[in-house]
Amino acid sequence: MRSFPLSRVYQLLEPGPVVLLTTASKGQANVMTMSWHMMVDFEPALLACVVSRANFSFRALRSTREAVIAIPARGLADKVVKVGNCSGSEIDKFKRFGLSPLAARHISPPLIAECFCNLECRVTDTSLVRRYNLFILQIVKAWIDPAQKNPKTLHHRGYGAFVVDGAMIKLKSKMR
Amino acid sequence: MRSFPLSRVYQLLEPGPVVLLTTASKGQANVMTMSWHMMVDFEPALLACVVSRANFSFRALRSTREAVIAIPARGLADKVVKVGNCSGSEIDKFKRFGLSPLAARHISPPLIAECFCNLECRVTDTSLVRRYNLFILQIVKAWIDPAQKNPKTLHHRGYGAFVVDGAMIKLKSKMR
Repeated sequence: MRSFPLSRVYQLLEPGPVVLLTTASKGQANVMTMSWHMMVDFEPALLACVVSRANFSFRALRSTREAVIAIPARGLADKVVKVGNCSGSEIDKFKRFGLSPLAARHISPPLIAECFCNLECRVTDTSLVRRYNLFILQIVKAWIDPAQKNPKTLHHRGYGAFVVDGAMIKLKSKMR
Repeated sequence: MRSFPLSRVYQLLEPGPVVLLTTASKGQANVMTMSWHMMVDFEPALLACVVSRANFSFRALRSTREAVIAIPARGLADKVVKVGNCSGSEIDKFKRFGLSPLAARHISPPLIAECFCNLECRVTDTSLVRRYNLFILQIVKAWIDPAQKNPKTLHHRGYGAFVVDGAMIKLKSKMR
């Protein structure tokens, strides 16, 4: 084994799929690119994510306690990167990048029509926000686009490199 | 958009790469399969993970506050599933599945020689363990195996299905 710099570990461990996170504040929707998230529980469906306070979305997420997590497939890779390279404090990213907002059922932030999956989420725990910008969200409604067959997700590897889903393998498993 | 069951959302969002987590307690090493983890910070290198208290590893992780996160490539998929389908309370998984423990530098749990990446971790925050089984770990040392070129990682999709890394794409990005 060879020693590896800690500052580059995220390139190996960073989870994916890369997702888009939408928020809405004072009638203005915004969207950011995110890949630091994980499942926390099945029932209720909980997830954790880290949203840096340097992101314009941070304040909306913390104050409105609502967000949509939308999962883009391979075809949206260019837009995913562009969304991540600018700030909602300066532009309307939905208009700029041709993303179509759809009304969510339970919350104010919009779904993204182009994404194959949209998850309506409510922030349920902010106890680790101050220390780590870590939010716990409950998924209250999930949507998929049945027209997108076998979507390939993106996994960030740092500096503009993404691995795209490859082959699916099936193994005998007792794991859920 | 079509409604999607919340109980299956993890199949879309579950991050990957699937990793192995080693612990050591009273001189006995153990290993489990895990895919609920995410990066939390670059510097210091922090990550979060969820280890169910139903797992034999839970007690060792909580009491010793040390673990290795080892990342297996495609060739280990069978072993990864088998490790996840049995309990260290009953068998020595290293022996049973032919995984080779290597001494870590800073902590007691072993590295796994067959994995292309090994991360020595110390638990630094247990404030969300009681509520969510969520641990915050600091990575104190990272190792890679330079002999494994372009390793393909595994992403769990539920019920024994895994997506293997496919093509790498490069896009112009300001993202780290």
